Amino acid sequence: MVNPNFINFVEPKSVAIVGASTTPGKLGYVVVENLFNIGYKGKIYPVNPKGGELLGLKIFENVKKIPEVVDVAHVLIPAAAVLGVVKDLAEMGVKNVVISSGGFTEVDEEGAKMQDEIVKTAKEAGMRIIGPNTTGVISAPANFSTTFTNVDELRVGGASYVAQTGNFGSVTLTWIMTKEHFGISRVIGLGNKCDIDDADALEFLGEDTKTKVIGMYIEGLKDGRRFIEAGKKAVKRKPVLVLKSGRTKAGAKAAASHTASLAADDAIVDSALRQSGVIRVDNYGDLVNYAKAFIFQPPPKGNRVGIITPSGGLGVVTSDALETRGLKVATLSENTIKKFEEISPPIIEVRNPFDIWPAVSNHGLEKCYECGLKGMLEDPNVDAVLMGLMLAKGWDLENIDPLIDTLMKHPNKPVISYGSGDWQLTEKLKTKFEKHKKVRIPMYEFPEQASDVISAMYKYTDSVNRIKS
Amino acid sequence: MVNPNFINFVEPKSVAIVGASTTPGKLGYVVVENLFNIGYKGKIYPVNPKGGELLGLKIFENVKKIPEVVDVAHVLIPAAAVLGVVKDLAEMGVKNVVISSGGFTEVDEEGAKMQDEIVKTAKEAGMRIIGPNTTGVISAPANFSTTFTNVDELRVGGASYVAQTGNFGSVTLTWIMTKEHFGISRVIGLGNKCDIDDADALEFLGEDTKTKVIGMYIEGLKDGRRFIEAGKKAVKRKPVLVLKSGRTKAGAKAAASHTASLAADDAIVDSALRQSGVIRVDNYGDLVNYAKAFIFQPPPKGNRVGIITPSGGLGVVTSDALETRGLKVATLSENTIKKFEEISPPIIEVRNPFDIWPAVSNHGLEKCYECGLKGMLEDPNVDAVLMGLMLAKGWDLENIDPLIDTLMKHPNKPVISYGSGDWQLTEKLKTKFEKHKKVRIPMYEFPEQASDVISAMYKYTDSVNRIKS
Repeated sequence: MVNPNFINFVEPKSVAIVGASTTPGKLGYVVVENLFNIGYKGKIYPVNPKGGELLGLKIFENVKKIPEVVDVAHVLIPAAAVLGVVKDLAEMGVKNVVISSGGFTEVDEEGAKMQDEIVKTAKEAGMRIIGPNTTGVISAPANFSTTFTNVDELRVGGASYVAQTGNFGSVTLTWIMTKEHFGISRVIGLGNKCDIDDADALEFLGEDTKTKVIGMYIEGLKDGRRFIEAGKKAVKRKPVLVLKSGRTKAGAKAAASHTASLAADDAIVDSALRQSGVIRVDNYGDLVNYAKAFIFQPPPKGNRVGIITPSGGLGVVTSDALETRGLKVATLSENTIKKFEEISPPIIEVRNPFDIWPAVSNHGLEKCYECGLKGMLEDPNVDAVLMGLMLAKGWDLENIDPLIDTLMKHPNKPVISYGSGDWQLTEKLKTKFEKHKKVRIPMYEFPEQASDVISAMYKYTDSVNRIKS
Repeated sequence: MVNPNFINFVEPKSVAIVGASTTPGKLGYVVVENLFNIGYKGKIYPVNPKGGELLGLKIFENVKKIPEVVDVAHVLIPAAAVLGVVKDLAEMGVKNVVISSGGFTEVDEEGAKMQDEIVKTAKEAGMRIIGPNTTGVISAPANFSTTFTNVDELRVGGASYVAQTGNFGSVTLTWIMTKEHFGISRVIGLGNKCDIDDADALEFLGEDTKTKVIGMYIEGLKDGRRFIEAGKKAVKRKPVLVLKSGRTKAGAKAAASHTASLAADDAIVDSALRQSGVIRVDNYGDLVNYAKAFIFQPPPKGNRVGIITPSGGLGVVTSDALETRGLKVATLSENTIKKFEEISPPIIEVRNPFDIWPAVSNHGLEKCYECGLKGMLEDPNVDAVLMGLMLAKGWDLENIDPLIDTLMKHPNKPVISYGSGDWQLTEKLKTKFEKHKKVRIPMYEFPEQASDVISAMYKYTDSVNRIKS
């Protein structure tokens, strides 16, 4: 069962910031500034022995002077002072603490000892800790954040991330906010994981109604068995994407000095991840690209893909890309072939991939894509559609409504698109597709990226079937 | 030896366009319009039985009426009429013909027969043919093109492409013109390869002084042995990137109906490509991304990579990415460690990856990257530098000149960068890096893409060593 207190980390009604600073640019200042910027509605209690005022808020000299038991305390003071504060917080009855301070197990023996003391104190008090050595939490639905990198605005949506360090989480968040059109729910940076670990976060996000897809960056799995259980439960409800680093010796060495993560045989990790039903991804960018597809489109029922291609060459490349990723180039039904033949010149042998290029000069781009999409979506032999576009002047989809209408009639089949040719037009069409109010078509660059995405979506279908059986 | 006539395909002083049209938008119109748009300086002879005028040019009723023996004839008329024109051209002594018309081997037996007749006629006359079934040639240094998709401008540079179909080549070209900052030399779309094939194109481009890197998209290898020889010769002078499709059964099937390419066991193709020393790439986008790096930076002497990372997590991910791609995370010399320690807080254990994040608050971003880059470039244990950036407000490189100056002192070590965090700032920095007048640092998205690039560059070094030994 999910720790009942976990919600306080992401939906706190009050927060103490221990180590608040009145100097603009300092981490202890940015944290408070961020809360104002993103519109946090709860109570904020800055704490600093010097007292004074910060952005109109009274600064408390120590946590004991705060007039209420806060839902969460955020600690960002030198390592040596953290234990004392944790003890005070424990005495007050504070149950959720985010420790951003570094200088613990990731540094040396001395640091490890301090961390152990903190954990002991917390355990005795029934207190849960995120960290240390992390930027902590971002929660868009609650307009809340403990991060000390500048955050101006959060676009609320269904993607939640668990990061080994919050820094990594903020990188991803910033990328999504500036490049993509989907939104964020929670970002949880675990840091040294002295208490709350991947399995805890996964358990919470698995049941979190505001989370539709979970992306995780993991350097070390603390408790494989618990992770497998948490994964299985979460995967029944939503897809979980995991980038597990430290695969190689050099990676493991870097992880050890980064967050004191212990190296584990990657084959063992891989087997645990497979058992849990999560989707292991290979690249950092996959955590963004795949999440987008899961938010915008349903997973496919099977692995048979209908390809709409803007050029013969890209059709060949797409066929290869799909089949090398465990997918099938669907054999179209006769009915579909007939429909495509109606708009294609008689000289063309119609098949999958359906090359729209020969039909465009007679029927125009909109009509051809509509016909292609309709045919693929109505075909019982097709589980997912990969729609390729080649943008160029005069080769731009002005009116995408017919596509969207067609898509709305088939809400259970995913359509994934990619752009090629003119990059600026590709970006414009991506915005049109992804910000549409009715249905959102995720758009990628080139056939391979789109194929990666469909492959990940099919893996999810496959995992759910496996776990449920 | 390279066919002495090949140069006429890409640097013609005169061109006949057989099938020119006075209807704007028609292919036979666009071809001529493109020549005006890109500023072709040679003579243009439009040919159409109807006669008349096109964009101020006299239209000739048939090729025989053209008052000179053109350097190249471009044919885009229905398949059935092509043989007659080819015979006329042969009689006139025209030695270079691009046939865009489709309807030959890629369609049916009948088409195959017509194609054979054309080849026979050409052989007897010592005429060389590109095509049929292709958009043909683009040559930026000569402001020349036979393509019938709209081309407005060409940025001249060192990347040349050979595409199975010209359509594919134009897609790539348009992408580069709209997204990247490097330029193009030749694009050659081979189509059905009735005469000129991959080996011919590779031979020519290998010796072409205006080509610095060659990218090829191949559906079927016609003559493996000749390709290996042409590859070996070319690779001694410049890198050759090959995307060979038809790897899978579905891909091979699509290739057969696209350009009548015969399926071959992919293991055999792979072995031929390896022997030739070319770099086989897996993704369409690699043809662009890798070419950029080869144009901007020298290949590394070895596989030991120095990593500058903007966050611990990205350092771990980068280490994994490099090592899973056959590269090594370099062991830094003591001297370098000392230099990095000077700017890092004492608590930090300095190593490779060099995490600049802890040093930034004391020294600023510019100083830290300069120190990192200098240390890595001066270290004899480092063959290449992977420089990671995390862009955010207040975390933007305003002044890149110190980096460029540092880089100029070490012209033989490549520096490859990637951006993360704020995508818009990443794009801005990419422009700054890649358009710099002194040295150009290629920039990618995320560590894996940058690692792919360094891996390809190292493969080239390795190939050259193998071929020369």
